[in-house]
Amino acid sequence: MELSKKNLNQRLNQIYDVIIVGGGAGGLSAGIYLQRFNLSSLIIDKGKARSFWMQELHNYLGLPPDTPGRVLLQKGKEHYASLDGDFLNAYVEEVVEEGETFAVKVKVGRVNGVDAVFRSKYLIAASGIIDNLPPLDEMRNVYDYAGYNLHVCMVCDGYEMTDKKCGFFAGSEASIEEMVFNLSWFTPYITVFTHGNFAVSPEMRQQLREHGYPLVETPIKQFLGQNHQMTGVELVDGSVIELETGLISMGSHYHNTYLQGINLEVKGSNLVTDKMCQTSHPRIFAIGDLKVGLNQVVIAAGDGALAATQIWRDIRCETGARRWEENLKVNVF
Amino acid sequence: MELSKKNLNQRLNQIYDVIIVGGGAGGLSAGIYLQRFNLSSLIIDKGKARSFWMQELHNYLGLPPDTPGRVLLQKGKEHYASLDGDFLNAYVEEVVEEGETFAVKVKVGRVNGVDAVFRSKYLIAASGIIDNLPPLDEMRNVYDYAGYNLHVCMVCDGYEMTDKKCGFFAGSEASIEEMVFNLSWFTPYITVFTHGNFAVSPEMRQQLREHGYPLVETPIKQFLGQNHQMTGVELVDGSVIELETGLISMGSHYHNTYLQGINLEVKGSNLVTDKMCQTSHPRIFAIGDLKVGLNQVVIAAGDGALAATQIWRDIRCETGARRWEENLKVNVF
Repeated sequence: MELSKKNLNQRLNQIYDVIIVGGGAGGLSAGIYLQRFNLSSLIIDKGKARSFWMQELHNYLGLPPDTPGRVLLQKGKEHYASLDGDFLNAYVEEVVEEGETFAVKVKVGRVNGVDAVFRSKYLIAASGIIDNLPPLDEMRNVYDYAGYNLHVCMVCDGYEMTDKKCGFFAGSEASIEEMVFNLSWFTPYITVFTHGNFAVSPEMRQQLREHGYPLVETPIKQFLGQNHQMTGVELVDGSVIELETGLISMGSHYHNTYLQGINLEVKGSNLVTDKMCQTSHPRIFAIGDLKVGLNQVVIAAGDGALAATQIWRDIRCETGARRWEENLKVNVF
Repeated sequence: MELSKKNLNQRLNQIYDVIIVGGGAGGLSAGIYLQRFNLSSLIIDKGKARSFWMQELHNYLGLPPDTPGRVLLQKGKEHYASLDGDFLNAYVEEVVEEGETFAVKVKVGRVNGVDAVFRSKYLIAASGIIDNLPPLDEMRNVYDYAGYNLHVCMVCDGYEMTDKKCGFFAGSEASIEEMVFNLSWFTPYITVFTHGNFAVSPEMRQQLREHGYPLVETPIKQFLGQNHQMTGVELVDGSVIELETGLISMGSHYHNTYLQGINLEVKGSNLVTDKMCQTSHPRIFAIGDLKVGLNQVVIAAGDGALAATQIWRDIRCETGARRWEENLKVNVF
């Protein structure tokens, strides 16, 4: 059921089989699988998964290629609710290991927030990441275009940028190094913006010059455009650069602070997992963008199936087989 | 475009970036990703993927839980076509490595079939498996219920069997060993059928007796029921056993004979792959049920994204970065 401040008391004495932190594609898919394994689960979602911001999900098998990410999430939430899964909108502050269970400490509600603790045997970390956006004075201006034709994922949306004049909004020289020459697979009409945030080495300047990609180091005043279609950039010096699309590559914020008290193997900021999405802790699983791997909605959904199935296998092994009791009383053999 | 006997000549001189053998969930997802990477792809499908037989796909994030598998496949095919992917209904007879390309030999059409050869740089084996069904005299009778309440996958449909009287249709003692005690997670009301096809050891008889699961070794005459809902089994001796659901566990047929001429690492009948679904051959990928892993539609769809992305990375690296030519003629810096 949908939990809230009003009814969460009903669940405070229960030990869930699994608490899932994050109600994005990975968390919802895991929840659907867990409920169908007849396990008890609670999804705790702070709202606005990364896919929530995607205006068009172009590459998810089974959905029309103009499906907004929030529609996928809504459908998944309804699916999960139809299987009697518990769902709570809240912020997970901390997870504490207490022997065989985890205590998951949450804050429910931003105004007059209520503290509560839920408990589970297993934990699925599905809280994902969120992309850093260009830090303009007026962030509303960035939100007007981000997720429309100002993209954050080349694998997802490179196709939409094909042979278009593209602004590449870099967070560091490393992001230029890693991405620009790959982006040229889709379009060679690339202008690189640093927003004045970092210095560019002479070697990188030379590489960009050899490829014909202008480098703009003057800070951005605002994005230009209308109806969520970005058409260019105005710099603080008043000059305007026309663009048809853009790719932001300024790194990501990882939603993982609640795991700080638990020692898990990481690679960079990502959690290391095995083939079944199990972390270095046997009762903590990580799925979707939080783990090492390709950040794609359909892969996060698959991860949910993997983690849920492994947890079911583990719990099933501990539980043992059930007997057909009435046959043991009468002789049917 | 949709290829057929009539127009396939238009593609015989082309070298595709990728040929995908199999138009199920994995193959279609791979095709969608490849086309969006601006790579050329051809899906060759013999029709009737495993998911085609699923009357209700209960656990695929984003689709209502009563979606027939064939609806998912139809949507995926339309999505792929909208991205200008080539699709051919044909049977792949053999794949031959010819240096840097593969020759994929196909038979198009069952009646007056035409032989043709298509070529590609990469190959994705997405041809999957199909479940062996109880070999009754009248197979129509089996098809009436298989995929409805006579299931083939416990992970997918265990939930549907919860606490119901369930027939377990075993292909070997090993399948009883592997599955029956796990099936009891969902229901303990299990009757095991051997169809007289194999002997059961005294140890297994004892285990079944201890759990209260009747063992039926008399061959099955037919399934009983109506409107695709199986209600029991009639044995060849005329006796009837009432059931509410069933699980078939008689192994699978692997659609992989076309790969026989290529030496690939296997585990049992499954192809071994790395995290990106690459087999032991660097230009052959395997996705979905053909590879080692969990057989689930959503995982096959994720596999398609992984394989396509790795192929794109490989081809992109070989190709190198594109330059913005007009900027190199005039000095924009």
